[in-house]
Amino acid sequence: MKRIKLEVAYDGTNYCGWQIQPEDITIEAVLNQHLSGLLGEDIHVIGASRTDSGVHALGNVAVFDTESRIPGERMAKALNARLPKDIVIQSSKEVPLDFHPRHQDTRKTYDYTFYHAHYDNPVTSRHHHFVYVPLDVEKMNQAAGYFEGKHCFISMCSSKAQVTSYVREIYDCHVTQNGPYITMRVTGSGFLYNMVRFMAGTILEVGRGKKEPEWIKEILSSEERVPVGPKLPAKGLTLIGIEYMEETED
Amino acid sequence: MKRIKLEVAYDGTNYCGWQIQPEDITIEAVLNQHLSGLLGEDIHVIGASRTDSGVHALGNVAVFDTESRIPGERMAKALNARLPKDIVIQSSKEVPLDFHPRHQDTRKTYDYTFYHAHYDNPVTSRHHHFVYVPLDVEKMNQAAGYFEGKHCFISMCSSKAQVTSYVREIYDCHVTQNGPYITMRVTGSGFLYNMVRFMAGTILEVGRGKKEPEWIKEILSSEERVPVGPKLPAKGLTLIGIEYMEETED
Repeated sequence: MKRIKLEVAYDGTNYCGWQIQPEDITIEAVLNQHLSGLLGEDIHVIGASRTDSGVHALGNVAVFDTESRIPGERMAKALNARLPKDIVIQSSKEVPLDFHPRHQDTRKTYDYTFYHAHYDNPVTSRHHHFVYVPLDVEKMNQAAGYFEGKHCFISMCSSKAQVTSYVREIYDCHVTQNGPYITMRVTGSGFLYNMVRFMAGTILEVGRGKKEPEWIKEILSSEERVPVGPKLPAKGLTLIGIEYMEETED
Repeated sequence: MKRIKLEVAYDGTNYCGWQIQPEDITIEAVLNQHLSGLLGEDIHVIGASRTDSGVHALGNVAVFDTESRIPGERMAKALNARLPKDIVIQSSKEVPLDFHPRHQDTRKTYDYTFYHAHYDNPVTSRHHHFVYVPLDVEKMNQAAGYFEGKHCFISMCSSKAQVTSYVREIYDCHVTQNGPYITMRVTGSGFLYNMVRFMAGTILEVGRGKKEPEWIKEILSSEERVPVGPKLPAKGLTLIGIEYMEETED
């Protein structure tokens, strides 16, 4: 038996998120179905990030165990030939049998993308959040900087998040502009449920002038659940990639 | 009566192009339907560029005549409230009654976008053309430069194009790279049927090393129908905008 690690990209628009649901089509279910068909075994993937309905990914990670003799690095191409067009495996390789995608030190990177104009752009609207009010991008970037470091993020998650600690470390968070596209990119050790969407919504309040950048500092230092910006729509969010700190062979 | 000019953006994926077809859903038909509903008149738009099935636009132009007392600049918002999400009016304004979107001097700009990586990116694949072979972007840009000027483009159009002259003037054509995205942007006085898709396919042959940039010069100077690169898929093509030379009030 061997364990295979996949980097998985998808357009989340037509899926009810990653995790298997009884009635709905999910990324996990589609991967299981096509891997089982490809390998002639009953395959169950384990995902690193159970992204929500509508969230996109360029590099989510999944592993599965197989008896197949197909070399790990050739799985990607074989699987892509079977998958629907909105899911594309970016790489595949064999990893140690004790490699677990959620039980290891990682750096995850997410983008939240705004489209800022008078009217929406239908060509890219499946993967941006449209904003027409005036924005101060410099202030958004300043606000983003306050997220960096180790903080209690209890205000930046859905109240249904069940965790033992709300402390997370953000290595980098900044906002850049490319024409009408404004992107918040954040890299951290891990994220609470809906955390990036709340962070983006809170930074947006700063951008539109409702709050000053220092508001982020106040929220985080309060260490209790205080009002923050709105949870923004899933479609603006893309999981860019997950880096495993113990993997050095890549 | 007054004449209204619209700038129209759309994701062409789910439409059989601009022009009304007896059986299929087209941009023109959807605009007529919703404008007629909004204004309570039988409205027929005239489009500047009758884009093909699957081609996108950020700024196609259409005009229509109406008896409505709604100010021209307020039509966009009212119409957007009725249109499906994949068609968004970017602006609306009143123009002289003799303004015809196809009978005036214009500069049209198109982008043809490649995604260059080992595997496709499903998040943006509705609006790029995936290429995995090695590419020389510098040579692609050199090749693009040879399109500039006034030339006979008979080799760069579908043979069913029925026109009196194959001569067109290209004001600017260049290729830029932004990470995995490579874009050919071309601005010209007008374009023959499928011309930009043939230009992009021909530049791609140069990029992958099958031909040298000077090949473009040879094709154009032959002034007869000679073999060129393939017509690339519609989904990589976006009509960026149309500038009307006689309009100076914008």
